[in-house]
Amino acid sequence: MVVVLKPDVPVEKRNELIKEIESLGVKVQVTEGVEVSILGLVGDTSNINKYRIASNDIVANILRVQEPFKKANKMFKPDYTIIEVCGRKIGEGYFTVITGPCSVESEEQIEGIAKAVKESKAAFLRGGAYKPRTSPYAFQGLGLEGLEYLKHAKKHTGLPIVSEIMSVDMLERFVDDVDIIQVGARNMQNFVLLKELGKTKKPILLKRGLAATIEEWLMSAEYIMSEGNDRVILCERGIRTFETYTRNTLDLSAVQAVKRLSHLPVIVDPSHATGKAWMVESMSKAAVVAGADGLIIEVHNNPSLALCDGQQSITPEEYSLLMEKIEKLVEFEGKKLVF
Amino acid sequence: MVVVLKPDVPVEKRNELIKEIESLGVKVQVTEGVEVSILGLVGDTSNINKYRIASNDIVANILRVQEPFKKANKMFKPDYTIIEVCGRKIGEGYFTVITGPCSVESEEQIEGIAKAVKESKAAFLRGGAYKPRTSPYAFQGLGLEGLEYLKHAKKHTGLPIVSEIMSVDMLERFVDDVDIIQVGARNMQNFVLLKELGKTKKPILLKRGLAATIEEWLMSAEYIMSEGNDRVILCERGIRTFETYTRNTLDLSAVQAVKRLSHLPVIVDPSHATGKAWMVESMSKAAVVAGADGLIIEVHNNPSLALCDGQQSITPEEYSLLMEKIEKLVEFEGKKLVF
Amino acid sequence: MVVVLKPDVPVEKRNELIKEIESLGVKVQVTEGVEVSILGLVGDTSNINKYRIASNDIVANILRVQEPFKKANKMFKPDYTIIEVCGRKIGEGYFTVITGPCSVESEEQIEGIAKAVKESKAAFLRGGAYKPRTSPYAFQGLGLEGLEYLKHAKKHTGLPIVSEIMSVDMLERFVDDVDIIQVGARNMQNFVLLKELGKTKKPILLKRGLAATIEEWLMSAEYIMSEGNDRVILCERGIRTFETYTRNTLDLSAVQAVKRLSHLPVIVDPSHATGKAWMVESMSKAAVVAGADGLIIEVHNNPSLALCDGQQSITPEEYSLLMEKIEKLVEFEGKKLVF
Amino acid sequence: MVVVLKPDVPVEKRNELIKEIESLGVKVQVTEGVEVSILGLVGDTSNINKYRIASNDIVANILRVQEPFKKANKMFKPDYTIIEVCGRKIGEGYFTVITGPCSVESEEQIEGIAKAVKESKAAFLRGGAYKPRTSPYAFQGLGLEGLEYLKHAKKHTGLPIVSEIMSVDMLERFVDDVDIIQVGARNMQNFVLLKELGKTKKPILLKRGLAATIEEWLMSAEYIMSEGNDRVILCERGIRTFETYTRNTLDLSAVQAVKRLSHLPVIVDPSHATGKAWMVESMSKAAVVAGADGLIIEVHNNPSLALCDGQQSITPEEYSLLMEKIEKLVEFEGKKLVF
Repeated sequence: MVVVLKPDVPVEKRNELIKEIESLGVKVQVTEGVEVSILGLVGDTSNINKYRIASNDIVANILRVQEPFKKANKMFKPDYTIIEVCGRKIGEGYFTVITGPCSVESEEQIEGIAKAVKESKAAFLRGGAYKPRTSPYAFQGLGLEGLEYLKHAKKHTGLPIVSEIMSVDMLERFVDDVDIIQVGARNMQNFVLLKELGKTKKPILLKRGLAATIEEWLMSAEYIMSEGNDRVILCERGIRTFETYTRNTLDLSAVQAVKRLSHLPVIVDPSHATGKAWMVESMSKAAVVAGADGLIIEVHNNPSLALCDGQQSITPEEYSLLMEKIEKLVEFEGKKLVF
Repeated sequence: MVVVLKPDVPVEKRNELIKEIESLGVKVQVTEGVEVSILGLVGDTSNINKYRIASNDIVANILRVQEPFKKANKMFKPDYTIIEVCGRKIGEGYFTVITGPCSVESEEQIEGIAKAVKESKAAFLRGGAYKPRTSPYAFQGLGLEGLEYLKHAKKHTGLPIVSEIMSVDMLERFVDDVDIIQVGARNMQNFVLLKELGKTKKPILLKRGLAATIEEWLMSAEYIMSEGNDRVILCERGIRTFETYTRNTLDLSAVQAVKRLSHLPVIVDPSHATGKAWMVESMSKAAVVAGADGLIIEVHNNPSLALCDGQQSITPEEYSLLMEKIEKLVEFEGKKLVF
Repeated sequence: MVVVLKPDVPVEKRNELIKEIESLGVKVQVTEGVEVSILGLVGDTSNINKYRIASNDIVANILRVQEPFKKANKMFKPDYTIIEVCGRKIGEGYFTVITGPCSVESEEQIEGIAKAVKESKAAFLRGGAYKPRTSPYAFQGLGLEGLEYLKHAKKHTGLPIVSEIMSVDMLERFVDDVDIIQVGARNMQNFVLLKELGKTKKPILLKRGLAATIEEWLMSAEYIMSEGNDRVILCERGIRTFETYTRNTLDLSAVQAVKRLSHLPVIVDPSHATGKAWMVESMSKAAVVAGADGLIIEVHNNPSLALCDGQQSITPEEYSLLMEKIEKLVEFEGKKLVF
Repeated sequence: MVVVLKPDVPVEKRNELIKEIESLGVKVQVTEGVEVSILGLVGDTSNINKYRIASNDIVANILRVQEPFKKANKMFKPDYTIIEVCGRKIGEGYFTVITGPCSVESEEQIEGIAKAVKESKAAFLRGGAYKPRTSPYAFQGLGLEGLEYLKHAKKHTGLPIVSEIMSVDMLERFVDDVDIIQVGARNMQNFVLLKELGKTKKPILLKRGLAATIEEWLMSAEYIMSEGNDRVILCERGIRTFETYTRNTLDLSAVQAVKRLSHLPVIVDPSHATGKAWMVESMSKAAVVAGADGLIIEVHNNPSLALCDGQQSITPEEYSLLMEKIEKLVEFEGKKLVF
């Protein structure tokens, strides 16, 4: 941590501040500049309250020297984390595709889609049983019934299940029924939920919040990891910007940013990012060569009748054609397609 | 709802679409333009899936004619809602200030602040018992102990309490102990929590999410109201933009927007919006004349030692001086200061 | 400037970097931390290329210690600048309102408006002769004819003129005809234009760009000032955010930010910021108590027939009523209304 | 254009409005809804002032049915435009890479880079002679001397030249010396410049503004085209968002959006978008498979000594390795690499 002082600070005031800071357990080293001087704090600054120092009236600014995330930080664990779920790997060197409808609508629907996408090399089946919807009047998901249908589909196809949890009270059930627990963008900073997920051993698919910086996203991963669960998969799904042509703005450069800052796997959701079925192919391909470890793609047997997000869902046939291209690009990247 | 068709659509295809839409229970009226034609949907369109129609390949665009919120909508309830809590009113014509520290840190701290701000005409005492923090390593609040201290402070000063709830499992306790339950910006779309709050009779202070549009914010109010609880107070607390000089960007025009779209009270949080104690005065004053129904202001006895958000907290003395100005401006606006 | 090194950098590499940096004319002071070390650069760093140092592979980050603007910086000129134009003052302690239509449409129109707003204590008459429009098919202004009409209106009312310049080739004419030259938001970083304006002695009204940070805005003022023209008036006119209910998001906290960082006057444009005539009153009032030095307000004799921005223009009658309130608030702030 | 009326509007008022609208030369067709009625305007609405109608107090909202750009619109010219410059094609089916340093620094520098990138299959040489810099104290380019060096480099390598114009007074010189004239992000809405460029026959590389929507970007292309110059190449270079890890946020989905809305070529600038040399490879590859028609990449012989944007420049060696991958992906996409 570096403390920038205002110009022309009296020496006594500066010494007082140094004394105060050193009482917090760190050493202070002064660099006297021509116009302003700075204090370098040496030692463990993780518990030092930045605001406390900033509120001192001789302080102009506080500069942070290190990232605030530890367990998620690549600097402290240089090897990329590979997460294995039901024999399928997710992480650097592999490419893993999670596919399925936005919401489970019926047993036939989810089984039909599951069979189709399995044939087209999906590694996991996704399906929403509980749906976070902007409107209270919109379809909210089938709930427990939806979870049951997902389990049946898993039984029949062998595809492990990914589904979104919306509250802590469903945790036990999700731990029992689901293979990867998804945390949605709107819950990325639901810290109570994150902590409870950190106490399980389940892999967690953590979507980036609509307005979350990459650092905040990694700090939410840190919440889960700080409780003991290291199996976090990050998912870029578009951020909110001024542009309204797409549902969100897919931030593909976040993939490389995460790969540099963290050892955790990162996948991309082109369906929510764009909100347009006809953009899914191009953004899926882009995600592969941008270095993502996988994709999560919405597929629906009949998008025009979907109860949720039909506009951004592709059909099983379109998915099959897409996967042919994906497979070639994964090979081009020297990675292994997991299925 | 208006459906815009692509140019040169064959009549049969158009008729098929009209038939499909009318099977959903609405009437369709065609306006033939020079280049494009449009379909006007007449009837109750609230259950019509916009995406379903949009995925038809002769459709160019769907335009919405009405706001999606009903119970929060001023069009259907033109009189402003006044919410009374422990004899104190919140809503049009009144000005109500909620004051206190970001987090409850000790019994002495909260009692000291409570007494001071009561003398300076605060109407409610705020204090965090559970704190949503970006970092899992930061102070997370005193929890139940904090709630107890708040209750003591209420007993000694008579100030009703406002505190933030972070999860459904604390609901019973909050209903018992707290006079207004606050929902933080990060939980604005925690729909499970919103629905449960909707089943209580407690007033809810609903903060705007970091990246929430005004419409999404009102839809979150609608979640609470659709379950039967009409006592929602909206709180503008700054939105996330590209500007980093302030913690967030205070969107003061949202106050008038809410006043036009909804009958619900709307207050302003200048402390979180700016993240800078020295900006609280100017933004508080601006909020009064911009038409807000109140303020929520962070006050700490010793900001430089605060365990949370010290940089944006003002002292009880600064608060006292601020309230003298606020009181005059409230009078200027022809409103009644509640305390 | 502070250079943060990566962990475990070999001493020789560090010494090489120090040598390289010192060859640029500054001294380097090392602070060795537990995990990372930092280099403090002492001396004139204004010509040091940050990117040059950052591209060295032992460097983790570069932190800037000082603001990059000098002449606009309050640190180096603590007294607020008061700009006097035709006997009217703009700056701290005064409140100055610039009023008129978005575009000059005819001689009668501008004269009529000028007389009306003069009676309601406008200090300056604004009117666009050249209009930057998003569409090439929209009304582009009357050009020179518009400037002539403005001059007539000035002659008849005594109100000095504010008008927007769009390119360098019009500079001579604007210097002759106009009292304050406005630079629009879209030209805030038209550096060629800024430099030429810096060579004149005319006061410049510099609008903030749609996506300009406060620092970039001050750097654009610095462009003008670095050429010798210190008479820059800043104008906050709303920034672009994800919210679409208002045309832009008025960033009122920018007023206080500018007042702290710079000595230059800062005024507010509530008309463009909100894009809604019915919001102009509340945001104008808010600007006064937020500490602005003035306003620029769009007034049109017949908004529904305006060739440009009618939706955000108020009538002379509405303006008159607004100014009564403004005058009281200016008095409340202990400032002097200029007219 | 669709006009949405407020609920319960008296028939006479509605008829008055219809009469007023029809006097503007269009026909009005009424659709009566259950709660609100709408007016569909039939005919040429391009000259109808939306704000004029919106300011009528019985109007709730105005919805636009068509895009405001005409000449750039794919709906009216379905075939993609291919622009040929010095025998090199830019547009659908081709992939064209423009390469060179941010700024021309010396004759040796630009010649050395030109030779190197030519060998690695660059199609055009870029180099800034005039540089738009945020700070007036930063290197502003070599000016005319820079243009001369570019011409020499063209003579020696045969690579046509791309360079940025900053003001109208340089137009003649740029038309003579440069093969593609670049308009920078900060000048995307410098309408005076756009119009003058529209009167030339030179190809224009139009960068997207920092906060420009896709529609505004296409409207700026329309400015050029409406004056008679159809040879516009669009360039996505990142937009400004809340994320600060990257210099801007590359909006790759804009490529497909442009391809659907317009027939104009669109290329991608990964260097400015990310601001990080180590991200250029991944984002370049992503741009190819996302459907872009080309790239503009910053290459510098010695990035750590670059006078401008060194942090985002790659070396000729890195460029050479990158182009091997690009070439394979271009082939994968079934396109032809132009060089």
